Amino acid sequence: MSDECVFCQIAAGEIPAQVLLEDEEAIVFHDLNPQAPTHLLVIPRRHVESTGTLETEDGELAGHLLLTAARAARQAGIHDSGYRVVANTGNEGGQTVPHLHLHVLGGRPMSWPPG
Amino acid sequence: MSDECVFCQIAAGEIPAQVLLEDEEAIVFHDLNPQAPTHLLVIPRRHVESTGTLETEDGELAGHLLLTAARAARQAGIHDSGYRVVANTGNEGGQTVPHLHLHVLGGRPMSWPPG
Repeated sequence: MSDECVFCQIAAGEIPAQVLLEDEEAIVFHDLNPQAPTHLLVIPRRHVESTGTLETEDGELAGHLLLTAARAARQAGIHDSGYRVVANTGNEGGQTVPHLHLHVLGGRPMSWPPG
Repeated sequence: MSDECVFCQIAAGEIPAQVLLEDEEAIVFHDLNPQAPTHLLVIPRRHVESTGTLETEDGELAGHLLLTAARAARQAGIHDSGYRVVANTGNEGGQTVPHLHLHVLGGRPMSWPPG
């Protein structure tokens, strides 16, 4: 855990969030600036900066995050209509919090290009 | 493999693609309709329809795809500037090929919202 990291603090329960689901490795909560009727964030409890800093041994965790995104979409009721999963890495990717997170957006048709 | 699936056919080498990298489980090639200076697709060789049909036992494969996306970004030279990884699931997600694929986009600043 990084003391400075807002997502670590959410994972630790030190900052409140509207949590949809959680397990030992991950936590899913609603984005504070939603870009779609449903906009969730999936984060690992462990501090990992981005997809770019995932190590080979983090494969299981990375997979768990993607499976959790699908599980969250199902629970939020956007699985059948469809949804988009987005991971921003670094400056041009648009990453604003340096703690790996998957955006899950749905409840409206998502357009193309994706930003 | 699904006989009807264009991405299965690319994975099998039956349809040509501009391949960036590949291994036993995944293959990365350039999108034919790029939405950014670099626009790659990461697909599993095995036919999986979408993130929504990933089973718990597919966690390792899902993780490998995400790690491969980062590896591909590094190889394509967009890792340091940043990039966006996108997975579309179902109709409103904008999924056009029913074979799981991660888009990797970079080489320009990606805007928000992501579609």
